[in-house]
Amino acid sequence: MEVFGPTIQGEGMVMGQKTMFVRTAGCDYSCSWCDSKFTWDGTGTSVSKKPEQIIEELKAIGGGAFSHVTISGGNPALHKGIGQLVELCHENGWKVGVETQGSFWQDWMREIDDITLSPKPPSSGMQTDFTKLDFFIENLAEANATLKVVIFDEEDFKYAEDLHLRYPAVPFFLQTGNSDTSTTDDALLTASLLERYEWLISLAVRSHIMNDAKVLPQLHTLVWGNKRGV
Amino acid sequence: MEVFGPTIQGEGMVMGQKTMFVRTAGCDYSCSWCDSKFTWDGTGTSVSKKPEQIIEELKAIGGGAFSHVTISGGNPALHKGIGQLVELCHENGWKVGVETQGSFWQDWMREIDDITLSPKPPSSGMQTDFTKLDFFIENLAEANATLKVVIFDEEDFKYAEDLHLRYPAVPFFLQTGNSDTSTTDDALLTASLLERYEWLISLAVRSHIMNDAKVLPQLHTLVWGNKRGV
Ligand code: SF4
Ligand code: SF4
Repeated sequence: MEVFGPTIQGEGMVMGQKTMFVRTAGCDYSCSWCDSKFTWDGTGTSVSKKPEQIIEELKAIGGGAFSHVTISGGNPALHKGIGQLVELCHENGWKVGVETQGSFWQDWMREIDDITLSPKPPSSGMQTDFTKLDFFIENLAEANATLKVVIFDEEDFKYAEDLHLRYPAVPFFLQTGNSDTSTTDDALLTASLLERYEWLISLAVRSHIMNDAKVLPQLHTLVWGNKRGV
Repeated sequence: MEVFGPTIQGEGMVMGQKTMFVRTAGCDYSCSWCDSKFTWDGTGTSVSKKPEQIIEELKAIGGGAFSHVTISGGNPALHKGIGQLVELCHENGWKVGVETQGSFWQDWMREIDDITLSPKPPSSGMQTDFTKLDFFIENLAEANATLKVVIFDEEDFKYAEDLHLRYPAVPFFLQTGNSDTSTTDDALLTASLLERYEWLISLAVRSHIMNDAKVLPQLHTLVWGNKRGV
């Protein structure tokens, strides 16, 4: 569990939003290209904290210069205490965003102000459990929920098309992936990320299925490369 | 009047949205850093077209691979025929986005699916008529409207803070400007745009007034530099 910010949300439905991050440890997946492996592969050290403690840290680190908190991971749905954290954030007048792959349901998800479901495409090496995902979509029908798929290759794009057709009512986001999560050559990384983004736009532009989709890069990676905690 | 796309919306409230562009000619402003000067300074050639003609062009050029049309400028509010164009777009099942500085009101603005009001900060050399802008904000209270300010310097940022305080209920976007609209050195342009974006984020992060703002770059300039019609 680490707390950082304020910074901006670099991805998805509230892209650009000024926010604090609470990054939880642990994941039930192990995506080949995970950019947060340190949250679950044992290389990171993580101390679990009580919701009240996290609120204190948010206040201390954020210094009043925020009104939005993003709970990311790992998979934040694995943690029991998050429901109470969400409640406490709301009591403090902060909005709460969450991203999860949609593999573990928690009732507190209905209280989230912006929730991104990000099922993983074939290149991740993971399998989507559609029974679970159907349950998520159904139970979040009244919530401010979107679907987001990270695309590395054309097979991933095909997966995204099928997904969008399965849940046509849910706002849909395509996102470029970062295939080099260790380089420190920022100029090179930026160039390759923008090239990938242009490639993804060209796929989306041709696809009639993606007519109402949004196609986005990861802004934080463009700005800060692979640096952590910004 | 030019039609191009499909491409993605690189700015503001529907960033990443797949869309066609209808770029209208003419502007009542003459911002120092305008990136569409060719629409109003006499260097571009422009033929005015009937709404029906524009619809035909959208169909021909877009080839069915879109469901959203962005009307940009210049200032699209200067054109009488836009109301009918919006109507025809809706009849075709397309959503319509518009960006305007908020200096000329038109009743069709209430029908727009996403409308961005972008008053110009001091660095533009323009003056904001707040009586007019108040009228816009009041009349678009039921619409899906946002405010966006392009920031070049700290004085612009101060202007944006005052604006956000004046209209606290309207979702607020800060955007980096492009101070070199003629270079063809894309790598250099990308680097300087990302540097500016990082600078703008750092201003926004420190400002308590901007707690609920979104801070965004121009995606199309990052991807395509100063190329036109992409
Ligand atoms: S679901 Fe997310 S955090 Fe978990 S392994 Fe995949 S990319 Fe990493
Ligand atoms: S209002 Fe927009 S189009 Fe008109 S001069 Fe200013 S930047 Fe250019």
